[in-house]
Amino acid sequence: VKQGWDKVIIVGAGLLGGSLGLALKKHALASRIVGVGRRQSSLDTALEQGAIDEGSLDLAEACAEADLIVLCTPAAQVPGQLDTVREAMKPSAVTTDVASTKAAICNHARQTWPQPQRFIGSHPIAGSEKFGPEHAFAELYEDKAVIMETGDHLDPDAEAQVRGLWTALGSRLVDVDPETHDAVVARTSHIPHLLSSCLAELAAGAGDVKDLIGSGFRDVTRVAEGRPEIWRDICLTNDAAILDGLDDLATLIQEARHRIAQGDRDGLDEFFQSAWDARRKVVD
Amino acid sequence: VKQGWDKVIIVGAGLLGGSLGLALKKHALASRIVGVGRRQSSLDTALEQGAIDEGSLDLAEACAEADLIVLCTPAAQVPGQLDTVREAMKPSAVTTDVASTKAAICNHARQTWPQPQRFIGSHPIAGSEKFGPEHAFAELYEDKAVIMETGDHLDPDAEAQVRGLWTALGSRLVDVDPETHDAVVARTSHIPHLLSSCLAELAAGAGDVKDLIGSGFRDVTRVAEGRPEIWRDICLTNDAAILDGLDDLATLIQEARHRIAQGDRDGLDEFFQSAWDARRKVVD
Repeated sequence: VKQGWDKVIIVGAGLLGGSLGLALKKHALASRIVGVGRRQSSLDTALEQGAIDEGSLDLAEACAEADLIVLCTPAAQVPGQLDTVREAMKPSAVTTDVASTKAAICNHARQTWPQPQRFIGSHPIAGSEKFGPEHAFAELYEDKAVIMETGDHLDPDAEAQVRGLWTALGSRLVDVDPETHDAVVARTSHIPHLLSSCLAELAAGAGDVKDLIGSGFRDVTRVAEGRPEIWRDICLTNDAAILDGLDDLATLIQEARHRIAQGDRDGLDEFFQSAWDARRKVVD
Repeated sequence: VKQGWDKVIIVGAGLLGGSLGLALKKHALASRIVGVGRRQSSLDTALEQGAIDEGSLDLAEACAEADLIVLCTPAAQVPGQLDTVREAMKPSAVTTDVASTKAAICNHARQTWPQPQRFIGSHPIAGSEKFGPEHAFAELYEDKAVIMETGDHLDPDAEAQVRGLWTALGSRLVDVDPETHDAVVARTSHIPHLLSSCLAELAAGAGDVKDLIGSGFRDVTRVAEGRPEIWRDICLTNDAAILDGLDDLATLIQEARHRIAQGDRDGLDEFFQSAWDARRKVVD
């Protein structure tokens, strides 16, 4: 595996893109990093942070000389940017992304990119409710899982380069096909985020509750302060799996509701004990 | 306000009761602390921790000589224990509790205790998903809100003593009537907890997802590892407000669901932006 690239393009200079730039510099993996964005102000912040060496508002132009291109934009923007990159990049370049949904993006690439394909989808399970390049830090990807697209349609050299990128930054690779990925993260990330948002609304609707808020509420609703565009695009690009998971969640809520309405002491014991076991199983 | 009591009874030697014992000792507010429990093993742990000086399995006997009695048991146990305490305690003693629901408890006391009433309901907004006396610590109540029952039916001396207790431990007092309290905390604590539990179940049902879990999921579901008996009793004693709040939550989920199903980009932007604002309003 080649360790390091001459020219790296990071598209989207937010928390994920900015942190990637800082991490590449920390590990001396890039000779030159160009940040591509739609707003000069974000690029200026990323430049000040030292996350990029140069800013550009023109994706096609920036890609022409790039060796590695990483799309760090909201998920619904990625397919269109993949079209631009495919046309503009050198045949030897490699492209990946960091979006939280994978089927729409990976299927788009599979239908439009030449094979063996030099775009490889990635999803680092890393982030924060804080967003923007001002919150970027070089260690964001350390000790985090990165979910990787795999398959015979991928170019082995490109695949090795993208896998080498993440392992060089301290991430561990987990191979999951895009459809399974989307179905699982709908239930482990997207729906928890949606509910966190609904719970913030519910509490705000209860009046002036500031004095009555505890650490439980803070934790349950922390992610509701995530970047709206990111979560909008996740919903737009993983709608089927999210709707499916919301059906199952509705059933779980209905069961709890029934036990409360019935004053079902044993049933409620069982409900909370089972959730306790479930959380231990998933997290510990 | 009298600062300190000769004999304090703490009923329920768990996280809240054990921490209360340690805090009373730290601030030298009690000459002697007796822990009352149903299991000798919990009392032994509390003794080892130094949270209590003595353990007892007999509430009535322990109360006979007490100056201050604090019930730190799950909410559905409190009314029955209030009956025992009322019969057994000295006329000069003061009683309070720390349960997370207030209307059932305060209304029971109001209907059964002599007035002016020497039971004053409290609810410290303090806790953790960790439970048991082994997790107790003296600072649990510092800088935390304690919601206080107020009213003409309360004995002013008893009220002053209970308020003095919490302020001596570093808590700040917030006066809220029991019905309003229950309606609000249903939406800021009880329903978030229920959903956290449902979300842990939803993820566990998605298979072996350990490798795909991020910090968002960890935070949203942290409280699902709370003590099942506590949350069962909260549901049993605040059923009406919880069911009412669950109706409003269902409406919020339905609105989000509709926007996802419609691919409503602007509607989803608005949903996440509004939730962002709501969370800031409530928490910051």
